[in-house]
Amino acid sequence: MAASGEELSDLKVENGAKHSGVEDEPETIAIMDAVKVLLQGLGEDINREGIRKTPLRVAKALREGTRGYGQTAKDIIESALFPEAGLHNGLGQAGGAGGIVIVRDLDFFSYCESCLLPFQVKCHVGYVPSGQQVVGLSKLSRVSDVYAKRLQKPQRLADQICSALQHGINPGGVAVVLHCLHIHFPSLESVFLDSKSSGWVKVQVQSGLGAFENQDADAWMDFFSLLKFRGIDLSKAGAPDSNSQLWCPSHFPSASKFSTKIESLNPRMTTAATSILRSLGEDPSREELLGTPGHFVNWLMNFQNCNVEMKMDMMKLNGFANGRTHFEHNENGNLSEKKIQSEMNFSFWSQCEHHLLPFYGVVHIGFLRADGVTHLEKSLLNSVIHFYGFKLQVQERMTRQIAETVSSLLGADIVVVVEASHTCMISRGIEKFGCTTATIAALGQFSSDAAARAMFLQSIPKTTIGEL
Amino acid sequence: MAASGEELSDLKVENGAKHSGVEDEPETIAIMDAVKVLLQGLGEDINREGIRKTPLRVAKALREGTRGYGQTAKDIIESALFPEAGLHNGLGQAGGAGGIVIVRDLDFFSYCESCLLPFQVKCHVGYVPSGQQVVGLSKLSRVSDVYAKRLQKPQRLADQICSALQHGINPGGVAVVLHCLHIHFPSLESVFLDSKSSGWVKVQVQSGLGAFENQDADAWMDFFSLLKFRGIDLSKAGAPDSNSQLWCPSHFPSASKFSTKIESLNPRMTTAATSILRSLGEDPSREELLGTPGHFVNWLMNFQNCNVEMKMDMMKLNGFANGRTHFEHNENGNLSEKKIQSEMNFSFWSQCEHHLLPFYGVVHIGFLRADGVTHLEKSLLNSVIHFYGFKLQVQERMTRQIAETVSSLLGADIVVVVEASHTCMISRGIEKFGCTTATIAALGQFSSDAAARAMFLQSIPKTTIGEL
Repeated sequence: MAASGEELSDLKVENGAKHSGVEDEPETIAIMDAVKVLLQGLGEDINREGIRKTPLRVAKALREGTRGYGQTAKDIIESALFPEAGLHNGLGQAGGAGGIVIVRDLDFFSYCESCLLPFQVKCHVGYVPSGQQVVGLSKLSRVSDVYAKRLQKPQRLADQICSALQHGINPGGVAVVLHCLHIHFPSLESVFLDSKSSGWVKVQVQSGLGAFENQDADAWMDFFSLLKFRGIDLSKAGAPDSNSQLWCPSHFPSASKFSTKIESLNPRMTTAATSILRSLGEDPSREELLGTPGHFVNWLMNFQNCNVEMKMDMMKLNGFANGRTHFEHNENGNLSEKKIQSEMNFSFWSQCEHHLLPFYGVVHIGFLRADGVTHLEKSLLNSVIHFYGFKLQVQERMTRQIAETVSSLLGADIVVVVEASHTCMISRGIEKFGCTTATIAALGQFSSDAAARAMFLQSIPKTTIGEL
Repeated sequence: MAASGEELSDLKVENGAKHSGVEDEPETIAIMDAVKVLLQGLGEDINREGIRKTPLRVAKALREGTRGYGQTAKDIIESALFPEAGLHNGLGQAGGAGGIVIVRDLDFFSYCESCLLPFQVKCHVGYVPSGQQVVGLSKLSRVSDVYAKRLQKPQRLADQICSALQHGINPGGVAVVLHCLHIHFPSLESVFLDSKSSGWVKVQVQSGLGAFENQDADAWMDFFSLLKFRGIDLSKAGAPDSNSQLWCPSHFPSASKFSTKIESLNPRMTTAATSILRSLGEDPSREELLGTPGHFVNWLMNFQNCNVEMKMDMMKLNGFANGRTHFEHNENGNLSEKKIQSEMNFSFWSQCEHHLLPFYGVVHIGFLRADGVTHLEKSLLNSVIHFYGFKLQVQERMTRQIAETVSSLLGADIVVVVEASHTCMISRGIEKFGCTTATIAALGQFSSDAAARAMFLQSIPKTTIGEL
């Protein structure tokens, strides 16, 4: 029981999928095999303790995250239509008291069909009851989830939710507004050469049918007013966002500038990624999926195992020597002048080795020195953080590695705090949106002196991780 | 398939519970029978369309919401302990780099053992790794959920999570901080006589073992600093909250002042509530549960069917006649002076008839008049809202009923917006924390004039529903 505890507790089964034996199903085994190929392509030992069960974790997460392929919105809706005698038969708004019903701020995640990474969705969905019936509110969420749990792009997701609700409820109209957030693709090179490449890609898309079919309809004005969007031009509120079609950063020029050409990628890895698409029930020859295996492998290759040491060498050549001279100068200075210094909010990106999913956030560093760091030192700290970020990692280890390396640069008294959001916490079974993880590593005086540690910790800015 | 679609899609099965046939299990059937008794005690026709499937919905929600009784934290943890060679064997903080690991802002709900209503939990959990191993981050969430999914009070919940993690991970220490929010018990009488009785009961509890056993430990200071609690007295941070033991509003003097004496409650209903406790696997003779059936029935009785008309009559006697005279005076005034007036943020409480769970929020009313409302009229609007709130309801119907009744008070041109949080959206399968529902009913000019409607809608305050 102990060995299979995680498997059982990880599992949520919906709409008749079998509970036991998911790990024995051929689709799961095929994905596991593909993930092993990908891990080996990253230079990992697939029997290493931390990643031994990663293929199973990834396979189950992907199948659970795309379970919408096996679900039908129609059944969900039909079981929860309730008569409401007071509603008029015509359009609610025009016909009388029965106006729009909106559920706001539903959190979902979906998988990007262009790169196979999860993206986050804040969903607002509404309809105008007619035909003397309303639908159970939770069904608006459940139906949205059916389409979110597929490989998607934002506009199609909005259109499919809208269409399913319109045909299932047959109301006066349906409106769907999605705010989608896609992780950027900061490769090891791009974070140094192009600081703008970090952050998020955001799009807003909407879809309307019935009373919302016309983008200028009064119904849209009501909808956006009830979403409390203020200060926007409501006359353009229903207009499509031209960026939404090619929103995935894998399509951006900056991505191609820094990433490996598809043809020079390891063909075993792209074949493995293609097999994953097929195992999820998708057709890898569908036009939107043609580039997906290459994009996914390109993303993964940022985290290949050999990179860190190699790039550390490069870093040493570039600036380490200069920095070192400077540090020695400082260390020979007056010890009594040392006080707690801090450098806050270095952003980082990494890849969770348990789930092959990104985690990202900020690093704060505290140290004892007479002065703050120089521009060069700050850039070195940034390098250290990225070099430990761009590999398969766990946050606890990364925190300790950064602390140990930084102590060789800034002296023995070091405290490092990492605050991160883990994609695996939202895109797997527990789906805990909004939770964050903090880790701390304290060396030297910061390890023994609680007051010094507290002084540093209390100075960390309150809001740091960003939009998610 | 259509008939059972909701049942299947509602279901999440964890840790080996059977997927099919939950509705046929004797515990489910016993709860359904008890819920039918409760509905009849409220004066409802259990064959009415809206509540026909309520017994099944309630039974499944309660069983799913207490599934933690059948789960073991140990299995969850053991499958996800990972070696981290860099960690020292001793206490992380003192021994070197391996400091505290915290997951912040995990959202849960739990069921209050004193009244059987769900309460909301924001959970912060941390541990100090030792023995060269770390636990998968998601397991901190999963283990917390095992204990949240039982009948609970805040301090025991914190203690159980803490103890399970300490024994499962065997780390340097475990700390758990919970912020719990319990719905208040505004009865129909209390909302008029004691305006302070609305709102929320909030407590913060904490539990610590190992390095956190001592409430003054430095480890607590680190923990609270990383939670970014600012401006609190950290020396008292670990001290227990004296209010946490009797936090459920069913224990408050104000509750007993307004609620029916236990001995005068319908004994069939209290027996039914007792049978629910037993079907969930609890012992109804456990000391903390002795009063629970009475508290639950007392809460339910606020929403009994006969109340509304009876109380409406009372209201008419008290103030309606005076109000009417005043309105007629206004209606005879200069029509051209009429402009859009609004009364915002009337708070309300109601009970979802689909799930027998509270929903609550605010009502905004717009109307065309030369002047705003008088104090008496405002109090009448408040009464109308409460009278439609205190029954088994759906938000769509309540919105329409308020609009129609208010139009007989303030004239034909009425718009009503209801913004609400539905407990059923967080405490059932979809667990969508933070989502809210908005409904609108527009009569007269507000129905046909989109610009008038927009002017009112845009004036609704941005944040209105309150803490949740």
